[in-house]
Amino acid sequence: MWTKASDAAAFAARRARLSKLLQSPALLVAGQSRPRNFQHNRFPFRAESHFLYLVGRSIEGAALLVDPSGDATLFAPPADPEAELWTGPMPTLADLSRELGLEVRPLDELRGSPELAALPPQDFESALWLSELLERDLEPGSGAELEGVDVALAEAMIALRLRHDAAAIEQLREAAQVTARAHVAGMRATRPHEREASVRSAMEAQIIASGCNTAYGSIVTVHGEVLHNDRHDGVLGDADLLLADVGAETPEGFAGDVTRVWPVSGRFSATQRAAYEVVLASQRAAIAAVAPGARYLDVHRAAGLALVEGLIGLGILRGSAPDLYARGAAALFFPHGVGHLLGIDVHDLEDLGDRAGYAPGRSRATAPGDRYLRLDRDLEPGMCVTIEPGFYQIARILSRPSEVGELESALDRDKLSRFADVRGIRIEDDVLVTLKGCEVLSEAVPKSVEDVQHAMLG
Amino acid sequence: MWTKASDAAAFAARRARLSKLLQSPALLVAGQSRPRNFQHNRFPFRAESHFLYLVGRSIEGAALLVDPSGDATLFAPPADPEAELWTGPMPTLADLSRELGLEVRPLDELRGSPELAALPPQDFESALWLSELLERDLEPGSGAELEGVDVALAEAMIALRLRHDAAAIEQLREAAQVTARAHVAGMRATRPHEREASVRSAMEAQIIASGCNTAYGSIVTVHGEVLHNDRHDGVLGDADLLLADVGAETPEGFAGDVTRVWPVSGRFSATQRAAYEVVLASQRAAIAAVAPGARYLDVHRAAGLALVEGLIGLGILRGSAPDLYARGAAALFFPHGVGHLLGIDVHDLEDLGDRAGYAPGRSRATAPGDRYLRLDRDLEPGMCVTIEPGFYQIARILSRPSEVGELESALDRDKLSRFADVRGIRIEDDVLVTLKGCEVLSEAVPKSVEDVQHAMLG
Repeated sequence: MWTKASDAAAFAARRARLSKLLQSPALLVAGQSRPRNFQHNRFPFRAESHFLYLVGRSIEGAALLVDPSGDATLFAPPADPEAELWTGPMPTLADLSRELGLEVRPLDELRGSPELAALPPQDFESALWLSELLERDLEPGSGAELEGVDVALAEAMIALRLRHDAAAIEQLREAAQVTARAHVAGMRATRPHEREASVRSAMEAQIIASGCNTAYGSIVTVHGEVLHNDRHDGVLGDADLLLADVGAETPEGFAGDVTRVWPVSGRFSATQRAAYEVVLASQRAAIAAVAPGARYLDVHRAAGLALVEGLIGLGILRGSAPDLYARGAAALFFPHGVGHLLGIDVHDLEDLGDRAGYAPGRSRATAPGDRYLRLDRDLEPGMCVTIEPGFYQIARILSRPSEVGELESALDRDKLSRFADVRGIRIEDDVLVTLKGCEVLSEAVPKSVEDVQHAMLG
Repeated sequence: MWTKASDAAAFAARRARLSKLLQSPALLVAGQSRPRNFQHNRFPFRAESHFLYLVGRSIEGAALLVDPSGDATLFAPPADPEAELWTGPMPTLADLSRELGLEVRPLDELRGSPELAALPPQDFESALWLSELLERDLEPGSGAELEGVDVALAEAMIALRLRHDAAAIEQLREAAQVTARAHVAGMRATRPHEREASVRSAMEAQIIASGCNTAYGSIVTVHGEVLHNDRHDGVLGDADLLLADVGAETPEGFAGDVTRVWPVSGRFSATQRAAYEVVLASQRAAIAAVAPGARYLDVHRAAGLALVEGLIGLGILRGSAPDLYARGAAALFFPHGVGHLLGIDVHDLEDLGDRAGYAPGRSRATAPGDRYLRLDRDLEPGMCVTIEPGFYQIARILSRPSEVGELESALDRDKLSRFADVRGIRIEDDVLVTLKGCEVLSEAVPKSVEDVQHAMLG
């Protein structure tokens, strides 16, 4: 499949909405590509998300000026004739203007001032350039600590991006579809005794073939208990579960973010199946809790409570589920948050710290199971979130009396030891909040034990 | 296939050799990973090449201190217990010391001074950190403009890296083998009416599955006349030639760099075949010129002269080959250099500007066909170079009287117009200079018309 581009009108509408939310002019920069091992060998350029959201295209070095009056001007570096031999004919500023439906001026006409609102770019080079232009300091990646006019701009961008417009939802759908193809390809490509990299390869091949990028570093590992495992050199053992957390990003920047777990052999063992179904029930309970008006912290808690119920069912925990959950039992096996905002960033708007994820007046809880939760807002139609509970046997938690504490007496270590072939399970979908409830955008990814085993047959 | 790692002894030997070349202590830094769209979403970390060459592993934030006395100490950031939940147990400094066979100390014990020699890292963040440590300014990526003690360090690294040791040659062989698999997979995966991205996907899948990375942004395009085309959205027309310039990088950083061109349909047309064979003859002439003692500029000239001879044979040029070549006829169709150094960088040592590529006393020529030549040294055994002549119909050159000049009268535009189905051809191999001549490391990549057509049958 090949992803469709949004209409130029969608970006014009976003710029017009931003303009109405502003009190003073704002400058959104695309930023610079990053060098890899030498200056001419660069990572593929991906514009700063706020810019990309408003312009739709990664134009290196460009900056968008938006005025409360409704004017928007793109300042872009002019085509370099010397570079044309290497990069081919570049669009002139007039071409660009026509394509984008936007006034385009040469970058050197851009005049900054300290009063111009801006958001810190991610890289040092762009931040230094912007600091010089505005004659005030902007630290790279410092969007969590804004002051003055920049706060209002951040709030305006959050207001725009938190609830997705129709074009954004279409992009998220496409990202989810490409991501689904990647996961099915990964399931089909899994062979015992091969390396994790061979599965990653099959998955990313689908993403590349669709014209997309990976939205984040792919996690494809038989050590799913390492939450952000970035190695791919492990050998797939016959009895292993493989965890794949892989998502596509469309050329306009919107992300998919899906995790599945499947047995290398093609058949879940009895213990793997039992643990998998406990996580699946937890995930379904959380998805069932996603609806307009629901507080995301409660979605997180629904997942944790269902996980504890499931673990009691397996005999791993002993006691009453609400009591054990209140005492932190879920966090022993599921120490991270149930999910996060999803949009043009895989952790959407995370460049602004918790300002986007946490509603005014709310802040991160300190309990072990809650402190990594990246989102605690009341959900509204058009928001997109991930739902991704898990079950992990993490030595750093389970072997430490300081972490287990009084829950030791509720833990049946003998029962737990029978689940040695379950190191880490996470099940993650992309969920759009709708008017009446929610829609799972990634529903094409096989999820039940039967569907996963069937997909692996190819 | 899975690439083999070099022995720890190979890196120890490199450090010992560096130590002997130094007059004063030197600090080689690994650098920092680069953020993508937000701080926690980063491009995969790839250490600065000089560090990677001496340590063999990309350890983010680490720095290697090498002393003329023979001492070498690695300063590394200590494992972060908070991060362990996400990244898994990290090796302790003692583990690292054992694995690398090297003294390892905590990074905060590192003390800089302006007298410590260093080379500028590629990114701003590392350059700022290093400037503070050394109490002197190091601009990122400014290795072409060194002063003082840094010059001696650059010269020492060039002396080390210019002629590859046995471990480096083994890495280059492995990179070439993975690259060969990628090209064969690309040939087999080519289908008319699909996108360029589908071929790129098949090629990069081979690279990922082998545990390697792409050494540079893959060029996979039906517009081969755009030398560094980075788009992959073009549709493969039945009559198109597809140009693929794709190479693998091993985990230790060594690069493959190979270009092939094949017909989308599986069969070269008569004109495509004729032009392809002219470029192939040019490439073979250049490879035949690679030997110890040969000047690389002469290799470049051998390619250009053979190209002109071939174009006379096709009737595109009229006149005597040496005369036409002397008047710049090759550059009309082949405006870039015939190749460059290959090693742990795909343009090896290019972070040091032309200091590595140009022997002392030599500098870039200004003639159109020569000014992009990245290398002009007398070849020595152990050097590895690419050989990559081409034939391109570039409007920016061929449609401009200012570029064609007096060569217009030697150009048969009618004949040339019959080659409209040949937009751009480049044939590139990785060539190791040996004691007696040279060895083509990438010889497993199909190259003759017959071999390419056969490989496409799968």
